[in-house]
Formats: sequence, structure tokens, C-alpha cells
Amino acid sequence: MRAIDVIQRKRGGGELTPEELSFFVDGYVRGDIPDYQAAAWAMAVCLRGMSAAETAGLTQVMLRSGVTVDLSDLPGPKVDKHSTGGVGDKTSLIAAPLAAACGVLVPMIAGRGLGHTGGTLDKLEAIPGMRVRLSLEEFRSVLARCGVSIVGQTEEIAPADRRLYALRDVTGTVDSIPLIAASIMSKKLAVSADALVLDVKCGNGAFMRNLDDATALARTLIEIGRAMGRPMQVLITDMDQPLGNAVGNALEIVEAVATLKGRGPRDVESLSLELAARMVRMSGLAHTLDLARAAARRALTSGAGLAKLRALVEAQGGDPSVCDDTERLPRAKHAAVIRATSDGRLVRIACRTVGEVAQQLGAGRETLASHIDPSAGLLVHKKVGDLVIADEPLATLYGSDAPQVEACRTLLEQAMEVAREAPPPVALVRRVFEDTP
Amino acid sequence: MRAIDVIQRKRGGGELTPEELSFFVDGYVRGDIPDYQAAAWAMAVCLRGMSAAETAGLTQVMLRSGVTVDLSDLPGPKVDKHSTGGVGDKTSLIAAPLAAACGVLVPMIAGRGLGHTGGTLDKLEAIPGMRVRLSLEEFRSVLARCGVSIVGQTEEIAPADRRLYALRDVTGTVDSIPLIAASIMSKKLAVSADALVLDVKCGNGAFMRNLDDATALARTLIEIGRAMGRPMQVLITDMDQPLGNAVGNALEIVEAVATLKGRGPRDVESLSLELAARMVRMSGLAHTLDLARAAARRALTSGAGLAKLRALVEAQGGDPSVCDDTERLPRAKHAAVIRATSDGRLVRIACRTVGEVAQQLGAGRETLASHIDPSAGLLVHKKVGDLVIADEPLATLYGSDAPQVEACRTLLEQAMEVAREAPPPVALVRRVFEDTP
Repeated sequence: MRAIDVIQRKRGGGELTPEELSFFVDGYVRGDIPDYQAAAWAMAVCLRGMSAAETAGLTQVMLRSGVTVDLSDLPGPKVDKHSTGGVGDKTSLIAAPLAAACGVLVPMIAGRGLGHTGGTLDKLEAIPGMRVRLSLEEFRSVLARCGVSIVGQTEEIAPADRRLYALRDVTGTVDSIPLIAASIMSKKLAVSADALVLDVKCGNGAFMRNLDDATALARTLIEIGRAMGRPMQVLITDMDQPLGNAVGNALEIVEAVATLKGRGPRDVESLSLELAARMVRMSGLAHTLDLARAAARRALTSGAGLAKLRALVEAQGGDPSVCDDTERLPRAKHAAVIRATSDGRLVRIACRTVGEVAQQLGAGRETLASHIDPSAGLLVHKKVGDLVIADEPLATLYGSDAPQVEACRTLLEQAMEVAREAPPPVALVRRVFEDTP
Repeated sequence: MRAIDVIQRKRGGGELTPEELSFFVDGYVRGDIPDYQAAAWAMAVCLRGMSAAETAGLTQVMLRSGVTVDLSDLPGPKVDKHSTGGVGDKTSLIAAPLAAACGVLVPMIAGRGLGHTGGTLDKLEAIPGMRVRLSLEEFRSVLARCGVSIVGQTEEIAPADRRLYALRDVTGTVDSIPLIAASIMSKKLAVSADALVLDVKCGNGAFMRNLDDATALARTLIEIGRAMGRPMQVLITDMDQPLGNAVGNALEIVEAVATLKGRGPRDVESLSLELAARMVRMSGLAHTLDLARAAARRALTSGAGLAKLRALVEAQGGDPSVCDDTERLPRAKHAAVIRATSDGRLVRIACRTVGEVAQQLGAGRETLASHIDPSAGLLVHKKVGDLVIADEPLATLYGSDAPQVEACRTLLEQAMEVAREAPPPVALVRRVFEDTP
């Protein structure tokens, strides 16, 4: 077999066999196949697509490039949750402790922010002392102790994904449903959970801009789960405006803690509860979704969810007192407020621009090597549809560099539009796919 | 401007501007843009195509990456000829001396064989002592003295093409009409000829497998010529069977010499005369194509064409006596004959397989670094439509390694099919495009 023949078959729209995928991806990871051949192949996949069987085959090859974490010795049902990435999406920080408080073990391998999207690991690292680079042994031990652990992808897990993702990022081959699906699932399947809840973000601030693309990704993810025997639920949720009010790492921790205290934004609370409920339902600890929803809500109102977050932070070396006093989190030196220039309703928040502004303020990174400012970001004080009175604050920007904050203010002003008529409200959860093999 | 944005615009089917093309290609040649980004871009071009303006823009950028050779001080009309590559295509070795014998100056920058196709330079190098790596000054001097010079692309000419071609060769991105057209024309336009005759090969043994693709390439080439003010004629000619009988470097020199002595295969003679006639017509030295054809034929029958080849060989350091006694060319150690197993007509010669067999025998190279055996190759003794009697020789293979020759014999046997009914004959020249701005 030759790499060039595999590339050419994909270029011609052919379906690659498991043997061809294994030859190519394993060869790439070993360094036998150079970056330029992998880049040509990735572009051919982007433009020619992959069949369901092919995508499952690719996932399996990527999964097998590393270790799998067997958690079967830990008693209790294990359910993981993953989001495809959005702006202001801190639901993992809320849903995971809530589900854990209901008795679910939540072994979560989370990601970092890239581009305009945030990452759970970066948010957690805004907490002083918090460690997300645990060994697999530490991960297992935190999970056994707290019922939840959230860590970064280790070197041992899906190294093929890590190499391919870095290459895709610089070759314009990130937006590809089979490549995205295989990347997500190869990491998720590396940890032996009983089930998986996936949140596919859809809209201007997500990688999937419209419902058709999000549906295609959801179906692909489910097909992979089915091929690999992993029960899954996939929710498609709205990302046409930021989730909640906070975008930025420390700011989102503040909002997550507030939500676990029953004082969070309505959308953040409702989506976090729904995701937690589906995790509980899939764990088998509740017999219906309504019972699972009731359990998740009890975990919120009783403070049990917040207690789980506190335990998780403490177990991973972080300062647990941030759960009581969020003033202990890093704070930005400079702030700038954007005010409404007329009465009306907020009709649009350009979600991708909001993410890009947060990134430029220091909350995100341009490249994987960039430094993050945990205190940077922004708060939007109004959501789409809200009444706005002239001179009322629409948003506040936070950053360490005053001229940068001012430059971003102009960008953000253009991203928020006030007008007479509000658009019809969009459901937060747009579609649900349930798959239980 | 960022490389990734250019890649993504092409991936999305956008038309790249001259500025974007220049940024990307110049950046690649300088080493600022890595191979993997160029590979992703090349694959996107393959699958998304390029507009006529874009292809002309790419040609210009590649042309400007190197020097142009100004021949305006040499008196007389200059016309170049180029073939897109085939199996057994030795017409350059015949048409160029014939046109030169008619008074045309022929400044030819030729290529090497790659894959299953042969290359004019490799054929010339089968002549003992022959040099094809001349400096531009030597090239000019041979041209002034002999009226014809055939040399390889120097370092100074279209370096962008050389780098891109090497990358395309290993990334499955060779077969792309805009990339092929820009590659050909950036080299051809680097030499200031008055006109250009192009032979676009079409069929199983060519890069363009069918008439539609060949027509698309011909039109693209003409559009580039028009954008750059270079008068052109493009012939689409059949490559569903090898041209002539000989495939392999020394074997093709023998056939070219025989043709210039009036003893060549009918197809080789007729196509070489037609190409030479069109060069003469475009030079303005003949006022009609029929007069040009008569002049080319006179150059053949008088021996003036052969004299020009002899002068060319001598001027470039080769042994001119091979034009009188082709026994002086390298000869293979081993030969194997394929015989017909039944009476009938030859109905098919799988042309690409013939080229691949010749390559495996040592006549071609797998990679640009491979060594060539000038004596290796094969002779097909029958053409499609010819009567065949059982036990008659169909082909003879020549090589230096007896087991290799035997292995190739099996391959070649499967490539030649004898049956009762001959297919209808295919015209050698399938289409002609004349463009004189």
C-alpha cells in the first residue's frame, strides 16, 4: 500500500477501507507519512466527505493509536458529557457536578479553547491552584473520591487525534463533519463510560452554523457511537448568541458558581439542568427523563451540586473557597462599558464576534502556544429579545491592556444591535437524538 | 494576508486574486509557507478548480518566480513545441529538427519522464555524451548555431513550478487541469518564442483520459496564451495506444532517426510532420498550412531534418554518428518476445500498462531520484487493427534483469488483446484549436 494511492482514492471520492485508514493514520503518527501527504488527504476528506462506515473506521484507528482507560472496577454508572464548542458555554462546569451529586460517575476529558470558542480546561485553570493535567492514575483517584474529575487529554489518549488536529488547524481542514466527529469520539471512547451526552452547538458562534450541518454532525456522532456500542444522546442547542452573560475564563467560573447557587442566567441554568438530567437518565439511576430532571433540580436547589464542584476543585489542587467567594478569582485591570444609544429591543448579538472579542481581550488563544489571561473577557448584560433603554449598559469588557479594551469596545458595539422589533424567540434545545443500542 | 485564509477561500470554491496567488506561491517558494499548507491548497485546487483568470494569474506568478529568456536578438522566427506527455511520444525529436530545417528557430525547454510517461530529455541522454543541462548562455549559442536546442528546465526558470510539481507528485495532486496548464505555460512562456504548438495527448496512456478533459485542458492552455499574448495552436492527439512501435529511451532514438530517414512508423511520421508543419506555419515562413506541410515533408525526404538532428546532437556534446549507425546506442542484455496465441486482429493495447511496463523495465523512474536504464523498454510489433497470425511476435521487452523482464512479460501479455473484430480506427489528430491573437 502507498500513501499516495490512499490520497488519490479519497480524492476520487472512494470509500477507504479500515486497512487503508489504519495504514495512513498509523503511518502518519509513526512519522512514516509526512505532514504534506496528511494535509492533502485531510483536504480531500473535507471536500469528498466520508461514509458512516469510513468515519467509524477512522474513529477506531484514532482511538487505537493510544490507550483506553478502563474504569469498570469503579462501582456505579459512568456517563460523560461533551460540547462541540461555543461562546460562553460553561455547562460542563455545572452539569458534571449536578450529575455527580445524583450519583453518576463523571469521567470527563475536556478541551481547551481555540479560535473564538472557550474551553473547559482554560476556565478551570482560572481557579488559583487548579490542576487539569493529571495522570490517568490521579484522574481515576479523583473520580473515585469525588464522583467527578475533569482533566485534559493526556499524551497516551488518541495521539493520532492530537497530531491530526494540530495539522488541520493550520491547513484549513477543521470544518469537516467526519473529521470533527472522529476527533470527538476517539477521545470520548478512550474512557470506558457507559453512556455519553453530546451537546452539538448550532449557530453563528458554533462550528456548525446551521441546523442542517448540526443535524449531519449529530447523526454522524450517533452512527459512530452505534458502531462502537456506546449509548448516546445528542442535543442540538442554540449558539446564535452567547450562552448566559459571561464570556471569559474567570468570569464564567463566577457564572457557573452563581448558577449552582440558583442565581445563574436562565439559559445557563436550564441547559445545564437538561444536560445533567440526561446524564442521570442514561446512567439508569432514574427511570424516566422527568424523574431525572427532578433529581438534577434537587441537586441544584439543595446545594449538592455546588458541594460537588467544591470537592472537585479541592481534589485537583484548586482553591475551593472560590465556590463561596468568587472575589478570590483573578480580576481584570481595565473595564469598559458599552451603552445603548436608543430605546428598543436587543435583536442581535453576533456570537462569533463576541467570541473573537473575548479572544482578543486575552481570554482565548491564537495558537496553541498563546498565553491566556484568566481575568479577560466580557459580560453581556442583555440577551436577544430583552427590552433596552437608551444609555443602559449592554456589555462590559475586561482586559489588562487599556487601548486593547478600547479597540475591542468598537468591535463589540457593532456586534450588538438594538431595534424596534424583536425576532421570534429561538428554542435553546433545537433537536434531540436518543440512541440506546 | 494569511496562508490559511487563502486555503480556506479555495476550499470554499472562491476565485483567488492575483495578490492572493502571488502571496501564496511566492511565500511557498521563499519557504515562508510550509509544504503541508501548499499540499492542502493544491488538493483544494484539484477538487474546486480554477477560473480562466485565476489560472492565468497562477501562471504569471509561477513565470515571475524565475527569469525569462529574451531571444529577440537572434534573427528569425522562434516557435516552440510541447507535448503533455505520453507513451512512445518521440515527436519532439523529429518535429523540432524538421522545423529547424525549414528555417524556424526552435528553443525547446523539455521535460523528463515521470510515472508511465517518457521524457524528451531522458531519450536524448540515451545518446552517448549528450548534454541537456546547458546554461542559458549555451542554450542560446546552440540555438544560434543549429537553429534548434533542446535542454532541461534550469534552476532559474520557473522555480515555483519545480517546487510545486515535486510536491504535487507525492500528494496525489498531479491531475488538475489548471495546475497542469499553469505548469506547462509558466515554463513555455519563460522563453520568448513568437508562437507555440502544443500537443495535448488524450486517452488511456495520457494524463487526460478522455476527449472532454483534453478539450478542457486545450481551452485552458489557449486562454493562458491569449492572456499572455502568445499565439498558439493546440492539437489533441490519440494516446489510446503507444505512438509508433518503440517505448524506451534508446529504442525511441532509433525510431526517431529511422523516421527522419523516411523509414519510421506511419503514425510517428504523420504526427511529426503535422506538428512541424504547424510550427512552420506559425513562424510565418509559409503562408498556408499546406505550403508548410510540403516544406516539412521536403525537410524529411531531403535528409535536411536528419542533418539538423545530427548538428543538434553534436552541438550538445553527443555522438553524432548515432544518426548514421544506431547500433552505437546502448543495448539491453536481456530480451523476451511475446507471441500471439491465436489468429485475429490486435484490438487493444492498454497504453498506460505499456508505459508502466517500460518504467518497471528501467526506462522510467519511480521518483525524481531514480536511475534510468537507457537501453530498457519495449517494441510493440503490431498496432491496433493490425492482422495477427498465431505465434507471430506481438512485442519484445528489453531489460538488464532477466527475472524482471519475465515478470514484465506477463504484465504486457495482459495489455495486448487479439480478437476477431477490429475496432473502428481512431483519428490520430482528434481536434485542433488555432488561436492567433
